[in-house]
Amino acid sequence: MNPGRPGLRPRIAVCGPSECGPETARIAEEVGREIARHGAILLCGGLGGIMEAAARGARAEGGLTVGILPGSSAADANPFIDLPIVTGLSHARNLVLVRSADAVIAVEGGYGTLIEVASALKMEVPVIGLRTWEVSPLIVRAATPAEAVKLALERAR
Amino acid sequence: MNPGRPGLRPRIAVCGPSECGPETARIAEEVGREIARHGAILLCGGLGGIMEAAARGARAEGGLTVGILPGSSAADANPFIDLPIVTGLSHARNLVLVRSADAVIAVEGGYGTLIEVASALKMEVPVIGLRTWEVSPLIVRAATPAEAVKLALERAR
Amino acid sequence: MNPGRPGLRPRIAVCGPSECGPETARIAEEVGREIARHGAILLCGGLGGIMEAAARGARAEGGLTVGILPGSSAADANPFIDLPIVTGLSHARNLVLVRSADAVIAVEGGYGTLIEVASALKMEVPVIGLRTWEVSPLIVRAATPAEAVKLALERAR
Amino acid sequence: MNPGRPGLRPRIAVCGPSECGPETARIAEEVGREIARHGAILLCGGLGGIMEAAARGARAEGGLTVGILPGSSAADANPFIDLPIVTGLSHARNLVLVRSADAVIAVEGGYGTLIEVASALKMEVPVIGLRTWEVSPLIVRAATPAEAVKLALERAR
Repeated sequence: MNPGRPGLRPRIAVCGPSECGPETARIAEEVGREIARHGAILLCGGLGGIMEAAARGARAEGGLTVGILPGSSAADANPFIDLPIVTGLSHARNLVLVRSADAVIAVEGGYGTLIEVASALKMEVPVIGLRTWEVSPLIVRAATPAEAVKLALERAR
Repeated sequence: MNPGRPGLRPRIAVCGPSECGPETARIAEEVGREIARHGAILLCGGLGGIMEAAARGARAEGGLTVGILPGSSAADANPFIDLPIVTGLSHARNLVLVRSADAVIAVEGGYGTLIEVASALKMEVPVIGLRTWEVSPLIVRAATPAEAVKLALERAR
Repeated sequence: MNPGRPGLRPRIAVCGPSECGPETARIAEEVGREIARHGAILLCGGLGGIMEAAARGARAEGGLTVGILPGSSAADANPFIDLPIVTGLSHARNLVLVRSADAVIAVEGGYGTLIEVASALKMEVPVIGLRTWEVSPLIVRAATPAEAVKLALERAR
Repeated sequence: MNPGRPGLRPRIAVCGPSECGPETARIAEEVGREIARHGAILLCGGLGGIMEAAARGARAEGGLTVGILPGSSAADANPFIDLPIVTGLSHARNLVLVRSADAVIAVEGGYGTLIEVASALKMEVPVIGLRTWEVSPLIVRAATPAEAVKLALERAR
């Protein structure tokens, strides 16, 4: 875990695939809303799918949204990103995303999300899972977006 | 250059050494203040010296400050950073900092700053120089903090 | 998959934890020996445990051993590495290791190895597993070191 | 400087632009030849121009050539690279190249080479210059390829 000094707003990363169906998007959007309602900063990979849905939700609640992009252009960011971080590092940006977070919420997810989950486990960043990879007992299961964000903020301490 | 979509707040990176004297700190702080007064986001390397002075200035004017850190802990950030990005990439984070900016203002600087200036020149991110490396005619010289920020914002377009 | 041009010697990465018991070390060493016997180059993370055992085996058969290190010093490499690549990237070096390989052999492994397995799956580098993570049907199971290297070389094409 | 343990073959990086004229290519090729004649390993960025010429020279003398590539495919390597390291890190690979070397020889060069020279100065890797950037008294000037390699190997200790 990596909390930084007291007084910093919590940073919660939402990880998940860049394409998703409407039901999963609804879940990710609600995760983003809950993050913003609690005054936390949303970090994500900045692209589409889960990342865009979560950023849309956080934006709708007036939250700050950060997109840590794999490519070399800020124009890759989805329209709900306030602050693009342009890494040019391809998939290695997944590790920057995870390290920068106080806690990670993984929503479903393919192999890219598995990189993030594994990185969080390796770096001891708390992971909350919503219908995601089951590769460790350290991943805390949540049943709803509200519960996921509550668990993330508790563990972000 | 790397502007992203219209509507994003400009992101201006301030680069310079992690130790500096009071006169240089005063200049960097004023650069940070000017960035915030213009509604832009301050990016920096998140550590001490020029980075801390610029963040202190931006914070004093209510601006948003982002520290793109080389190490593996958010606790490395100086006390004026609102959003630490924790890369774990050592000096390779200098390139992430530069890529994420619409323009770079270099204030004095040693070899780390030269990595940033060279990276900006390579990636075609505009560079404004305040008493810094003179390695290219593409570096636009500024005489004062206010002029540096004005030039950076003009070129950030 | 990422074969490069015809004529290059195959590059096989061996991934696994930096600490391991003697039985696992014996397996990793035999994997290294088999890689060298087939004229392939051994890539690994350059540190101890599985990485050192594999390098020791490859070295014993006259093979070339490459250690892609997370830290900032070549002195971190185990004594059987011929060529240290010093990344300074911390765990992000795991992705450089995987990308550089024609195939990956994962031997047991913790969360660091899971980063590598997930990265290989994401980047479509073939993965052969010896008692490792079971997170995808794409991971080809091998029962012995000889079988693992045979499968890796077949898929490296 | 970053020597690693005794017994390792020296690793000399040759840095320079990906396009160059025949006279500069001749110089870079001779640098590569000299590196191989001294039993050292040639590291380079793996692409064209200076990198290709140096690798061609080292290969012609039976040396080992390593290309630390910015992109995501080993197929990007020039035909004289024995071992491609595929970083996917874009220009951040320049820092991996420099860190992995016992000494750097810069041949002419644009802004990419300046990233490498600045990185070497920052990381205290010795830099030998052949008609390159003059940004520090720490850069040791050489008049000929043979002198450049001699100086690099002396400082690599």
